[in-house]
Order: sequence, then C-alpha cells, then structure tokens
Amino acid sequence: MPNPKIAVIMGSQSDLETMNEAVNLLKEFRADYEVRVMSAHRTPKEVAKFSEGARKNGIKVIIAGAGGAAALAGVIAAHTTLPVIGVPIETSGLKGLDSLLSTVQMPGGVPVASMAIGKAGAKNAAIFALEILGAQDKDVEKKLSDYKKKMAQKVKEIKLNV
Amino acid sequence: MPNPKIAVIMGSQSDLETMNEAVNLLKEFRADYEVRVMSAHRTPKEVAKFSEGARKNGIKVIIAGAGGAAALAGVIAAHTTLPVIGVPIETSGLKGLDSLLSTVQMPGGVPVASMAIGKAGAKNAAIFALEILGAQDKDVEKKLSDYKKKMAQKVKEIKLNV
Amino acid sequence: MPNPKIAVIMGSQSDLETMNEAVNLLKEFRADYEVRVMSAHRTPKEVAKFSEGARKNGIKVIIAGAGGAAALAGVIAAHTTLPVIGVPIETSGLKGLDSLLSTVQMPGGVPVASMAIGKAGAKNAAIFALEILGAQDKDVEKKLSDYKKKMAQKVKEIKLNV
Amino acid sequence: MPNPKIAVIMGSQSDLETMNEAVNLLKEFRADYEVRVMSAHRTPKEVAKFSEGARKNGIKVIIAGAGGAAALAGVIAAHTTLPVIGVPIETSGLKGLDSLLSTVQMPGGVPVASMAIGKAGAKNAAIFALEILGAQDKDVEKKLSDYKKKMAQKVKEIKLNV
Amino acid sequence: MPNPKIAVIMGSQSDLETMNEAVNLLKEFRADYEVRVMSAHRTPKEVAKFSEGARKNGIKVIIAGAGGAAALAGVIAAHTTLPVIGVPIETSGLKGLDSLLSTVQMPGGVPVASMAIGKAGAKNAAIFALEILGAQDKDVEKKLSDYKKKMAQKVKEIKLNV
Amino acid sequence: MPNPKIAVIMGSQSDLETMNEAVNLLKEFRADYEVRVMSAHRTPKEVAKFSEGARKNGIKVIIAGAGGAAALAGVIAAHTTLPVIGVPIETSGLKGLDSLLSTVQMPGGVPVASMAIGKAGAKNAAIFALEILGAQDKDVEKKLSDYKKKMAQKVKEIKLNV
Amino acid sequence: MPNPKIAVIMGSQSDLETMNEAVNLLKEFRADYEVRVMSAHRTPKEVAKFSEGARKNGIKVIIAGAGGAAALAGVIAAHTTLPVIGVPIETSGLKGLDSLLSTVQMPGGVPVASMAIGKAGAKNAAIFALEILGAQDKDVEKKLSDYKKKMAQKVKEIKLNV
Amino acid sequence: MPNPKIAVIMGSQSDLETMNEAVNLLKEFRADYEVRVMSAHRTPKEVAKFSEGARKNGIKVIIAGAGGAAALAGVIAAHTTLPVIGVPIETSGLKGLDSLLSTVQMPGGVPVASMAIGKAGAKNAAIFALEILGAQDKDVEKKLSDYKKKMAQKVKEIKLNV
Repeated sequence: MPNPKIAVIMGSQSDLETMNEAVNLLKEFRADYEVRVMSAHRTPKEVAKFSEGARKNGIKVIIAGAGGAAALAGVIAAHTTLPVIGVPIETSGLKGLDSLLSTVQMPGGVPVASMAIGKAGAKNAAIFALEILGAQDKDVEKKLSDYKKKMAQKVKEIKLNV
Repeated sequence: MPNPKIAVIMGSQSDLETMNEAVNLLKEFRADYEVRVMSAHRTPKEVAKFSEGARKNGIKVIIAGAGGAAALAGVIAAHTTLPVIGVPIETSGLKGLDSLLSTVQMPGGVPVASMAIGKAGAKNAAIFALEILGAQDKDVEKKLSDYKKKMAQKVKEIKLNV
Repeated sequence: MPNPKIAVIMGSQSDLETMNEAVNLLKEFRADYEVRVMSAHRTPKEVAKFSEGARKNGIKVIIAGAGGAAALAGVIAAHTTLPVIGVPIETSGLKGLDSLLSTVQMPGGVPVASMAIGKAGAKNAAIFALEILGAQDKDVEKKLSDYKKKMAQKVKEIKLNV
Repeated sequence: MPNPKIAVIMGSQSDLETMNEAVNLLKEFRADYEVRVMSAHRTPKEVAKFSEGARKNGIKVIIAGAGGAAALAGVIAAHTTLPVIGVPIETSGLKGLDSLLSTVQMPGGVPVASMAIGKAGAKNAAIFALEILGAQDKDVEKKLSDYKKKMAQKVKEIKLNV
Repeated sequence: MPNPKIAVIMGSQSDLETMNEAVNLLKEFRADYEVRVMSAHRTPKEVAKFSEGARKNGIKVIIAGAGGAAALAGVIAAHTTLPVIGVPIETSGLKGLDSLLSTVQMPGGVPVASMAIGKAGAKNAAIFALEILGAQDKDVEKKLSDYKKKMAQKVKEIKLNV
Repeated sequence: MPNPKIAVIMGSQSDLETMNEAVNLLKEFRADYEVRVMSAHRTPKEVAKFSEGARKNGIKVIIAGAGGAAALAGVIAAHTTLPVIGVPIETSGLKGLDSLLSTVQMPGGVPVASMAIGKAGAKNAAIFALEILGAQDKDVEKKLSDYKKKMAQKVKEIKLNV
Repeated sequence: MPNPKIAVIMGSQSDLETMNEAVNLLKEFRADYEVRVMSAHRTPKEVAKFSEGARKNGIKVIIAGAGGAAALAGVIAAHTTLPVIGVPIETSGLKGLDSLLSTVQMPGGVPVASMAIGKAGAKNAAIFALEILGAQDKDVEKKLSDYKKKMAQKVKEIKLNV
Repeated sequence: MPNPKIAVIMGSQSDLETMNEAVNLLKEFRADYEVRVMSAHRTPKEVAKFSEGARKNGIKVIIAGAGGAAALAGVIAAHTTLPVIGVPIETSGLKGLDSLLSTVQMPGGVPVASMAIGKAGAKNAAIFALEILGAQDKDVEKKLSDYKKKMAQKVKEIKLNV
C-alpha cells in the first residue's frame, strides 16, 4: 500500500467489527487506505505522532472510530488540519449516546465530522471520505455516482410480499 | 461571486444567527461561498433542484443548518455525491438534541457529516469545508495551519486573574 | 387494487416487520390500500413523484414508517396536503428515540402525525388512517366502533391467575 | 357556532398561550371550531362526556393540548373513534419531553396523532385537522394548497443580509 | 375476599409478570387485596366506575401499573381521593422512561406516588401500600418492621467468595 | 405544634422555595406538620436520628425534597417503615432529571413515593400525605373531597378569550 | 488481611459480577483490600458505622458500587473525609444512567469521584484508588507506570486482519 | 508558589467562572496549587508536555474542567499515573450532559474521577483533591474534618421562616 490516502483508525480491537463496514466499502471502491488501532487514552503519543505526520505521509482524510468517552477523533483533529471523520461506536450501556456526544460536541475551531452511531456510521464514514476525494477527482466521483444509482435501483426493485 | 465553491444553506431565516458563524469564518478566509435559505419541508423542489445541480455549478462542499426534525442536510445528501456538512440548530424545547439526531443518524449509503449543536458547530462546519478543499489545495491548507497556530497562541497567552 | 385510499410507505425492506402491523390491520378492515418501499435518502425522486401525485391517484391518507434520521414522513408531507402519519421505527442503538424526534418535531406549516415507536405505532397508524376516513364515512366508523367494543370486551374477559 | 367541526381542547388555561397558534390558524382558514379547557386529571367526567358525545355533536376532529403527564389526548381517544391530535405542551423542567412521551407512546388500538412540542406543534395540529377535512372537501383542500404555496413563496423571497 | 383493602390494577395482561411482584408481597404479608386488569385507554368507563366506587367498596390504597403513555394511575387518581401508587412498566423501546414520565409528572392537585420502573417498583408499591395502612395499624407496622429487619439480616449474612 | 403528623424535610435552605408549595397546602388544610432542613450528605446523623424516632414522635408521613444526587428520601426510608414521599427538586443543569432518578429508582424493599419534579410535585406531596391520613380519617377525606370538587369547579368556570 | 488500605463496598450481592473487575485488579497489584456488601437503603447503620470508623481502621480509600438510586457512595462520603470512589452499576431498565446521575451529581461539600458505568468503571475505580496511594508511594507508582506501559504495548502489538 | 501540589487546568478561559469554585476552596484551605488554561483540542502539545512532567514537577493531583466533547481530563490521564479529577462544565445546549459523558465514560485502564456538572462539581473537585492528600497528611485531614463539621453546623443552625 505505497500511496495511502484514507486512514481508518480505531480505539480498540473490539471496534473492528463496526469499522469493518468502512474497510469493506473502501475495498469495494478500490480506494487506497490503511487501518490501525491507536488509542487517545492508551497510546496518546502514537496518536499525536500519527496525526502530525499524516498529511506529509500522503493521507488526505482520516476516519476515527471510538466508543464511550470517545476522544480519538477529536484528539487527532487537534494535531492536523486534514478532515477527520468520527464514528461513534455503539456501547453496551448508553448505546452510543456517550460516544456520539463525545465525538460531535467539539469546540469551535477544531471540527470533527460525526457520522451515525455504529455500523451505518462506519459505512458512511468511508463514503464520506470518498466524497471528499471525489470533490476534486472525477474518477471517484463517477464511482460514487454509480454507487448511488445502484443503491436507488435496489430499493426500486424490492418486491414486498404483503 | 462567479466561482462559488462552498454553499451555506439554512432551513429558515431564523437560523441565520447561528449560521453567521460559518459565514463569518468563510469571509475571514476569503473563501468563495454563497448563502441561501431553502427548506426541505417548505421548498422541497428548490432543495432538490439546487442539490442536483450543485456539482455542475462549481460547488465543492455544502453546509446545511436546520433545527428540530432537521431533514435538510440529509435531503441534500440524497441528491448529490458532494460532501454535505450538517449543523444542528439549537431548539428552544429539546435544546438541539432533536436537531442533532435528525442530522447525524443517517442510514448507510447517504452520509451527512454532523457538527456540534449551535454556533460552535456552524463555525466548525466552515472550517471543515475548508479542510476538505485544503486536502488538495496548498493555499487553503496554509491558511488553516496558520489559523490553528494562532488559535493555540491565543490559548497560551491567556493570563488568568486568580 | 383499483381504488387505493391508504398508502403505506416504508423507508427500507427491513421496516416491513414493523409495518406489517399496519398492513394486517388494514386487511382485517378490508380497507383499500397499497404498500411500497421508498426512501427519502436513497430514492428521493420517487418519494417526490409519489407524494405529488398521491391525491390525484385517489389516495386519501399516507402512512410512512422510517427509522434513525427518519425524514420520510416529513418529506412526503412537504409535497402534499394529504394527511401524513409517521411511524418511528425502533432502532438498535437509540431505541427509536432518534426516529421519534426526526418524525415528530416538524416545523410549523408542515405537519406529520406521529404515532408511537415500533409495532404499536404501526398498528395505530392504520387505525388512525381509518379514523380519518371514518370521520366522513359511516361504514368505516361503524367498523371502528365495533373494533373498539371488541377490544374493551377482551380486556373485561381477562381472568388473571393470581 | 352552530356547526362546529374541529374541537380544540386544552388541559389548563395556561396552555392557551401555546394553543392559540392552533386557534389563530383555524380563524385564518375560517374553519368551524370550538375551544374548551378540560382536564383528564381535574375534570375527568367532563372529558368523558365531551368525548363520547363529540361525533353526535358534529365534531369531526379533536385537537388536545396538555403538558407533563399529558393524559388528555389519550383519554379523549379512549372515548371516541374520531381522530384525536395531541399537542405536547413545553414544560419548564423537562422541556416537553415528558409531554411528548405521554402523548405519543399510546398502546396498540387507541391512536393519538402527536404533533411537535410547543407552538409549532399547536399550529400544525390545526393544519393537520384541516388536512383531515380536506381529504374529502375540495374547498378546504384548495385553501391548504394555497397556504402551502404562499409558505414556499415566502421562503423563496427571503433576502439574506450577509 | 370479603374485605379488600388494597387494589392492584394493571393496564394489560402482559403487565402481570411485573405486577406479580406486588401480588406476591401482599400474599406474603397476608394482606387483603384484589387484582384486576383495566385500561385507561381501552376500558375507560370501567376505570372511572371502579375508581369512583373504590372508597365505598372498602379499598384504602390503589396500586396501578401501566407502560408507555401510562395514563392509568393518573386517571384513577382523577376519580378518587384515595392514595394511588403508580408502577411504570418497563417498555421494550424506551425502557420505561416513557412509563415513568407519564406516571410521575402529574399536575398540581392530583398526585400519583410513583415507584421505580419495573419489578422493583412493583414490589415496593406493595410495601408502600402496607406502609400507608401501617401508619395507623400496629399489626401491619409490626410485620413491616420485621420484614425490614430480616432484609437487613440477609445482607449482613452474605459471604462473598472473592 | 404538640401533635405533628406530617414532617416536611428538605436537603438545603434553597429547596424552601419549592417546598413552600407543600407547606402552604398543609396550612390551607390546617394539618399538623413540622418543617426541617436536614441533609443526607451534610448532616447524616441528624437524618438517621430523626427517621428512627419519627414514628415514636407521632409522625405518620414524611415528605422529603432534595435535588441532584437526591439521597434524602431514600435514606430516610432506610430508617423507618413510615411512608416517605420524595420531591425531586428542579436543578439548574439537568432540570431535575437527576433528582427524579435518584429519588424514584429505589431498590426492592425500600420504597420512596416520588412526586413530579419541582413545585407541582411539592404541592402534590402534601395532598398525597393528606390522602394517606384520609385513608382512615373521615375528616381529612372530606376536606380532600371538597378540595377536588373546588378544583374541578375552577376549571369548569374558565372563560377563554379566543 | 491485617492492614487493609482499600475498601471495596457494594450495595448488593448481584453487584459482585461488576465489582469483581475492581477486586481482580487489586489482586493483580497485590494491594491490601477488603470487600463487603453493605446497603445505604437496607443496612444504613452498618454503612454509617463502617464509614465513620474507616480511617481509624487503616483504610485510605473507599470504592463503592451501587445501581439505580445509587446512594451508597454518597452516604459513605457523608460520614468520612476519606476519598470515596463511586461505581455506577449498569441497570436493566435505564442502563445505568440512573446509577450514574445518583452517584455523580453530589452537592457542593461532599464529593464522590464517579467512574464510568459498569465493568470499565469498576476496573478504573481500582486503578484510581491505587493512583491515590501512588501519589505518595513510589512502589505503587512504579507498578502503575509499568501497567500503563504494558497496556500501551498491547495496543501497539495488535495485528488487524483486514 | 514554589511547591505546587494541586494543578487546576481548564480548557478555555470561559471555564474560569465555574473553576473559580475550586480555586477559592483551595485558597480557603491554604493549599499549594497552580491554575492554567490548556486545551486538549487547541493546545494538545502543551497538555501532553504538562501531563508527562507533572509528577516530576511536584504535582500530586490534577483537576481538569472542560465542556462539550470534554476530552481534557481523559487526555491528561492518558499521559500520567497521577490521579486526575474531571469537572464537566455546564454547556448552553445540552446542559453539561455532553461534558459529563465525555468526562466519565473512560475506557478500562485510564480512570478519570468525575465530579458533578458545574460549580458544585468544581468545588468538590478541590475538596476531593484535598482528601487525596489528606489520606496521608494529618494536617489536611484535620482541616477537612473541621470543614465537614462546620458545614453540618451551618445546616443545623438554619431557621426556616415558614
């Protein structure tokens, strides 16, 4: 993977079940990406080092998934001016409301783009990352446009058995 | 404004007080932008028409602010593959929790990037829009980087009177 | 189904499990109805086209079920002056609180009539649709009245084993 | 008022500030209506008597606004098969979340159509009541259609000073 | 059961699983009680009739369990000056938060004494009913006092295997 | 006050504004009562001593108002088998949701009867205390019955200016 | 265990499943500790006696886990100036939101240090207790520092299979 | 201030109004402390540097106040094994629920001790910091004990004017 453009970061290994939705979508789109586990609370230096070097390392967009007091996306955003997309992981207790508020309620000056809680959010994080690239890349835009049409087509073809 | 790149849309005129945070930031960065009132519930055709034509009209990112059952950002995202950033407007009753959930809990396939509730979210929507452009524009990236440094500098210079 | 009067719309096929409560009630009442999957976010044009043509096509009431950032009922209501009844589908994360607020917190001018979250809400959407017709149709009113009596009778006949 | 068609009921006099939004809309539409204070908790017999006799007295739709443990709309719905529209009044403590859940979470068999919390909800209750009548009354439908167009027109004519 | 003193009412048969906690406690205390299913929304007349006649029929305290838009306890309280204890039944969607707010947020003038959501609340409703009787009945008070001591004793005798 | 029957306890002096609703109602009913400030967290021994001696001192019902992590009513209930009524005081931050859950979610075995958040709850605590006494005191019951009738009468006499 | 330094208290035996996370961490660190079941609501005198004597008995930190209207940590804190750490136990209904608010929303003057809801919170309570001791004990501090490094190392060694 | 023991950190200058409650209490106790503004999102390097060096610089306890997506306390805790106390600042929109969940819901391994939302929490953070020192410092313990007694005394001396 010599030319990664999208980084998918998650706070713990258990987040992979959710974040795989993002990874699989990126695979489907044949996007350049890398996937890593890094924790704002357990490996803060790695997060800082990664975030500060991200742009220089060719990364264009960062997706960060974390649960509970989900500081990961915000801490990454603190160290870079690249767009950071946050995925609030669903938690057993508060069902991801904690993750959502910790991800989305960023102070003025340091944005994180929050997706929905859980798997839908992870999938959408990947699509949104591609939309960012697609804003200036005709090829990606074409793929996204086709994806959107296929999605609509699938809905139209549903036959309900009622 | 012959070459708009960022569109700032809001659901009603009363949202302007919040959305001005975005507009002012874009002014400060001398970004190309346009501002419009359009409502997913009151002028749905205008929203559809605008969203479908946005890319062709040179728009690269769309910021959409709405409150309550805030469908605006999601409906725009339904019609385009441009990145759509949602700003949940604070409401008098539920304090923007309704706006937030209506904006962020999008189904898989149609992402909206939600910012924080209210003014901080509006400001961050503008910064995030610039980060999207900056991902592939050195100039914008430079300005964002300077902004980030100045912001940090201001914090460092605070003298507390305690 | 030559003369449909009640339309039951849902945002995705997975909503059918819930919305079947509405469909079954309509069957039981031998009502004229049609059932379709249409998504405010994935097939917005179909939603717009359906909603605008609904009255002309003989539809008198529209029931719309959706989950998460549930824009469906509101977007339909944006395109028609027919009464639109919303059913907030229960979601895995926030348990339908997101669906409820996205459905019910409509801005002044564009009403959606929200039912309860989940299956009870779907069933009640069908009854409420019949009540709307029954407001001016003696036959329907008679059936609703009988239904209400039977329901009460069933409660009265419960023998608790305590 | 010999031929009332829409009844506007509220649980206490202090709800009038909110419910006036409904009353004024009905006035604007020159609808037949009556307005009363009746409480599910303080005057339950009046509520029962009113609800049972409503259809016979020419009422076609009932709007009921109440706050807190807002039982009013549900109790009215318990006594009639007329469509009942609930308006959750905003409360000082829980901001109407209590009113909303008490109004909308009705059990299967006895629907209440909930509007948004507060003034927007009251206004929409009136429009929704008219939509119910309009489903089978060309005149009302025409007025609603004009109202919708004017509303859209107003949005289109907004000139933002940014 | 010639001399019932405590009435246990529930809104539907499915509430019995929860309310059995109350019934079993009353059995254990050999209290006089009766158990009935009655619904504020499906059999409102029975609720009114029961509540109005309760005092004359020798009832001293009423326990009422209901879920969702739980109007039962409040509607009973509307018809009597006997103390009414409400048990919010846990719901599948909102987990009883709806039941709790519908039960506890009564308007000034018509109190309902709310217990905790679910089984603990049902059990406590029975104990609280006995405390009401015990406030003026030495015998009941003695039993409650013994119960409290035994409960404490059990806690003290716990041997943890750590 | 030689023969107090109802004790009104509050956790801090600032709760008096709310709890005065209870005191005034008791005054209006010429009930025997006493009012004290005692804190589960700041004067726990006083609370224990008071609660243990309450029955012997002629108290029949205890009303306890507290806010935030409102332990007062529960701790009193831990020390007595008298009925304890809890009033959740409205807080500035969470608006009394914290007070309500801390008051009402008692474990099985130790009931607290929770009233509504704030002033309505305080007033109802007094009425409920009187209902407890009235369950076996014809005089109190008569007064409550008159109060209920007057309350209904007042509602019936409202003339709306619409 | 002649020299206990950390006391782990829980409100009921069923809390042990959660609190074992604290116990096991303390075991792993070979800390001096004791574990007891004591209930603010069912054995209030034991709680008072234990808390008042804790410092004299060589205890330096108290961990208290409880669910629902979780008064335990606060009541212990009322009786001692030792640091008290609260663990909100996850509840079936409100998922520990009730436990959290009852634990954390203490009034000014009587602090409780709340950890996260459930097992993560229990584990962290033990670590935090050790941090308190470690603030002035090099040995403990060394162990905590090693633990932190190992934790980071584990994260770094994760190999994702994507 | 040659020998600081307690550090009071806040995320922005506007937090000072709240955090002054902590500062004033520390003044009253003549504690050694220092106060600084540092932001996890705007000056992340300063936070990292400060936290890593804190123990070496003689700090024993860290108090950190922040609002919204309040990452500050958690990020500090990520870099040190000193006890970190979090104060969730009340926010205009969600009233500090966001701050609370972001502060308290820390993952296993990295504890933050959360206080109540707002001023009571800030005051308690200072008391709790002193309790930590007092666990092994007789002098501080004596002062805390006196403070507790005075607090109780004040409650006992309240004369209610009822």
